[in-house]
Amino acid sequence: MAKPLIFVTNDDGITAPGIRALIAAMNELGEVLVVAPDSVHSGKSHAVTIHQPLYLDAIKIDDGPQKEYKTNGMPVDAVKLGLAHAVQRRPDLLVSGLNHGVNNSVNVLYSGTMGAALEGAIEGIPSIGFSLDNYDWQADLEPAKHYMKKIARQVLQDGLPQGIALNVNIPYLPLNEIKGIKVARQAQDKWHENYDKRTNPFGRDYYWLNGNFSYEDKGTDTDVFALKNGYVSVVPVQYDLTAHHLINHLKNLEQ
Amino acid sequence: MAKPLIFVTNDDGITAPGIRALIAAMNELGEVLVVAPDSVHSGKSHAVTIHQPLYLDAIKIDDGPQKEYKTNGMPVDAVKLGLAHAVQRRPDLLVSGLNHGVNNSVNVLYSGTMGAALEGAIEGIPSIGFSLDNYDWQADLEPAKHYMKKIARQVLQDGLPQGIALNVNIPYLPLNEIKGIKVARQAQDKWHENYDKRTNPFGRDYYWLNGNFSYEDKGTDTDVFALKNGYVSVVPVQYDLTAHHLINHLKNLEQ
Repeated sequence: MAKPLIFVTNDDGITAPGIRALIAAMNELGEVLVVAPDSVHSGKSHAVTIHQPLYLDAIKIDDGPQKEYKTNGMPVDAVKLGLAHAVQRRPDLLVSGLNHGVNNSVNVLYSGTMGAALEGAIEGIPSIGFSLDNYDWQADLEPAKHYMKKIARQVLQDGLPQGIALNVNIPYLPLNEIKGIKVARQAQDKWHENYDKRTNPFGRDYYWLNGNFSYEDKGTDTDVFALKNGYVSVVPVQYDLTAHHLINHLKNLEQ
Repeated sequence: MAKPLIFVTNDDGITAPGIRALIAAMNELGEVLVVAPDSVHSGKSHAVTIHQPLYLDAIKIDDGPQKEYKTNGMPVDAVKLGLAHAVQRRPDLLVSGLNHGVNNSVNVLYSGTMGAALEGAIEGIPSIGFSLDNYDWQADLEPAKHYMKKIARQVLQDGLPQGIALNVNIPYLPLNEIKGIKVARQAQDKWHENYDKRTNPFGRDYYWLNGNFSYEDKGTDTDVFALKNGYVSVVPVQYDLTAHHLINHLKNLEQ
């Protein structure tokens, strides 16, 4: 029987330690095909390149058995272009990450890691985005590798319901201090923007995005709560954005 | 009593006919503040600029009473930066558009128009994205103006439930041929990518995104169905992506 085909991408770029750790973990589970951006694309959400040409080039980065391509596109482009022109057969699993930094709560919306995973779900491929609660590219990724392998193996075995992807966030703790996995909901928190206003050498004002994350959701069933308490959080996220429960409530708009 | 403050943005850029029509319509309902990208940002979804400085400059484009700012950022940046540095008080309504082209079905995910509207919803502001089923910048926008004003007026009056924005798509028809408004769900359709592969003058292959939209959802309660039948479609969309109904189903991942 053919090994499962695992499509790997990310948003931190193909040379980021996070995706190298994910590739190493997936090599133990199947045949790995990597199609990933050639540079950092954090915060690119579900954005897609419409008005620019895209490149797709084979590249060899380490000694692993995986096949790799880099693209100048964003994470969702990598998925679309990779599925159209790099795969020989339909992938059995799509994994995105390991992101350097959490994508819990409302961060899922801005996340290129999760944009790519949701694009995989739209294509009907069981898809998972993995993120680590640490922004340091020097961080120890071994505990995360353990959980990425565990969750990917189970999804390869059981599949996922149609229409969803998994948003997995991993606490930055030694393996023996991670308490396990919690299936959770997206916490209802938000960012408070606080742009840093500066003046450039030519006297023109500019702004850098800055902000504080505001923990407003006190629920104990959220991804934020799970992570804070030492668990890997798994949120099933869907690309049907319809608030079905409000359709009837809004019928007065039809008058 | 102070007039309601209406925040206007878009993804086609501040000089696009669509946003000029939206501004004209909103000037009849309240005090209008425009913060919009200085160039085209179609397909930018919920992307946010993290690693680049942003500019925010006052600009005068027409003779209307509105106050306007342009930014080099994307649609979600325009909302974040505008709310942080351009508004004097909290807006009563945020409107995004009028997009040149439909954002029904799965297109809502790629849409910068809707990224901006959802960002408004995250900020707790009643927010609406408007899109027209026509890509031509020369299209007659008068029928769309009628419906944008009608829906915005009602949302100003009634508000919207917390956690959602409205995704409004308007058929390209003469006003007397538009049959009315339908509150609908997002159709479960998708794109079939078909990249156009070319070779550049230096012999390197490149790809242009191209594709066919595949109408797979046969439901009569969808936005696609409403539009096809001459109705303005209104989908309540939420930024909580959790597939709540699947949390228990996935509990086996916790073992």
